[in-house]
Amino acid sequence: MIQNSFNFSAGPAVLPSEVKLRAIEELEKNGAEGFSVMEISHRSDRFHGILGAAENGLRRLLRVPSNYRILFISGGASINFSMIPYNFLNSDESADYVVTGYWGDRAAKEAERCGSVKRIFDGSGDGFRTVPDPLGLIPNSGSRYLHYCANETIQGVEFDYVPKSERPLVCDASSNILSKELEIGKHSLIYASAQKNIGPSGISVVIIKDDFLAEALPNRLSSLDYNVFAKNDSMPNTPNTWGIFIIRLVCDWLESQGGVDAMSRMNRQKADLIYGVIDEFSDFYIGHAKKDCRSRMNITFSLPNDSLESSFLDEAERKGFHGLKGHRSQGGFRASLYNAFPKEGVERLAEFMKDFRLKHS
Amino acid sequence: MIQNSFNFSAGPAVLPSEVKLRAIEELEKNGAEGFSVMEISHRSDRFHGILGAAENGLRRLLRVPSNYRILFISGGASINFSMIPYNFLNSDESADYVVTGYWGDRAAKEAERCGSVKRIFDGSGDGFRTVPDPLGLIPNSGSRYLHYCANETIQGVEFDYVPKSERPLVCDASSNILSKELEIGKHSLIYASAQKNIGPSGISVVIIKDDFLAEALPNRLSSLDYNVFAKNDSMPNTPNTWGIFIIRLVCDWLESQGGVDAMSRMNRQKADLIYGVIDEFSDFYIGHAKKDCRSRMNITFSLPNDSLESSFLDEAERKGFHGLKGHRSQGGFRASLYNAFPKEGVERLAEFMKDFRLKHS
Repeated sequence: MIQNSFNFSAGPAVLPSEVKLRAIEELEKNGAEGFSVMEISHRSDRFHGILGAAENGLRRLLRVPSNYRILFISGGASINFSMIPYNFLNSDESADYVVTGYWGDRAAKEAERCGSVKRIFDGSGDGFRTVPDPLGLIPNSGSRYLHYCANETIQGVEFDYVPKSERPLVCDASSNILSKELEIGKHSLIYASAQKNIGPSGISVVIIKDDFLAEALPNRLSSLDYNVFAKNDSMPNTPNTWGIFIIRLVCDWLESQGGVDAMSRMNRQKADLIYGVIDEFSDFYIGHAKKDCRSRMNITFSLPNDSLESSFLDEAERKGFHGLKGHRSQGGFRASLYNAFPKEGVERLAEFMKDFRLKHS
Repeated sequence: MIQNSFNFSAGPAVLPSEVKLRAIEELEKNGAEGFSVMEISHRSDRFHGILGAAENGLRRLLRVPSNYRILFISGGASINFSMIPYNFLNSDESADYVVTGYWGDRAAKEAERCGSVKRIFDGSGDGFRTVPDPLGLIPNSGSRYLHYCANETIQGVEFDYVPKSERPLVCDASSNILSKELEIGKHSLIYASAQKNIGPSGISVVIIKDDFLAEALPNRLSSLDYNVFAKNDSMPNTPNTWGIFIIRLVCDWLESQGGVDAMSRMNRQKADLIYGVIDEFSDFYIGHAKKDCRSRMNITFSLPNDSLESSFLDEAERKGFHGLKGHRSQGGFRASLYNAFPKEGVERLAEFMKDFRLKHS
């Protein structure tokens, strides 16, 4: 079947069609006893199996060492913006934040409610086009932790290295988790909202090292306490059961596709197709990120003027390319090419971009 | 078609089959542009329409006055256990908590992390079988607010009146919202996790009076700040879009069934069928709640001994009655008869209970 429309949404984002088929099957068959996963107790054996499969799937795919816990938390990356400083930053302490875009800035601002924040890199001066030079990034020795956002969804800026830090390393991997090797072992905490590469919105995944978890501040409000989630296997209360079910299906799909290594190779190919057009016609397509910081997940670019941008968006929509408009804070365009985005759609977009340029220059 | 199995789960609980059919249709058709509601931006026109329809549906069904906001928050009732004291209770203030069961106790314990808690009623002495006498409930004049749980899901104890309080009244209506008239206007804040009468798990609904919202404490962590949710129309970040979609479908279904008044009448009939058997064979079925505090949503009872209970559970499962086992903290049995639970299933359970008693006495 020829696919005629493509979903470039930055998130909630495209899901594999196999996952959607299994979700339909679940609702139609309604589970072995006549009830769907949305309607069964989270304490039931069946849901326990689903939760375990989701956790084990992520553990295998991401090669999570045994001294790390995997937690599911209702809420997206934003709840972790709060939880991280609330669990780890006393008011008389400071944390380092590497700010390479909109979301890193949001995380840093939230941390300022708990303690002192040192922005050891802030890319806002040039409109968030870069990540810091690895050698130029100097963490503070007294810092409680170092936080960075591995991929900035809005600006399309991605780290191609893991920052070095003597202090615990905390990573927001919302928009590139499962897209390439993550080097979990270098981190104390990695978190990600699900709605880009893991599943639907309203749930986040947290991977936290045991010895970091042991350092969390005591007497926290339960709903923001990582230890409460860890001690209760992500279920101090009813979790987002549908979300966990879909995550489990996404893990199955990823394993059937060859896992994260296969995704990583494919994501490189997909991104290269679009960046290739941007570089070939750099008088026309203006890439936002500097070349060595380009995101493989969110490709951001603009055109020479508003009139061309308006035509581009109109023609793209008519061709079946949806969700290409850049974030309201950023303008221009953004092609989000998460794991589930089909290569065919990338090829078609690349062709369209070439054609559009020929027609309009 | 004859239905052969019935889902008495206390939550996540049975959904109307019409809702499941529409959810399947959504996934199959995948929305007008080829993408399902799980895959589209929460900022898209389509999702904006869904969010508005969910909010307006609840507003009509619950007759929510215009000076109340309706918020959707990722997380269940538990996140509100934290948010209520965190937004409204300073450390030098006190709040009144009416504790008629497990969940009211959890809410009170969480509030103790923020300020002083006065349990102006605590039913634990007799194993949570009652609600307070309306005349005997004396709120403290200096209390910041009065909190009660309208229906205790585990013990099956339900208020049949709204407590009187000069101070702001806060209600956990997780397990009886939409089951009967709520008298919103008497409350300053009503909250409910969705997975019983509203939708799937991982999301809660908050109905909050404007003037109470204006009294919330400033400088809260964003993810627990009711004002942040209100100012951003429930979307300071990506919400649980699937959950909101299902809530919207449940609202449509409720309206097609005649709304909350029709539900209330039906729920009375359904509950009476089971309580009728308990009262007729009160030497055999031991109802937990006192008669004037019986829940119409969660009917709790036990049998004279463990051996009979074990047989009852086995035979019930074989007959297709699932989810009847009481909460692990409570034992015995619990028949949860939320709005979407079909009357036929209640009639069949009542017959079974009579037959079982005849066979075993």
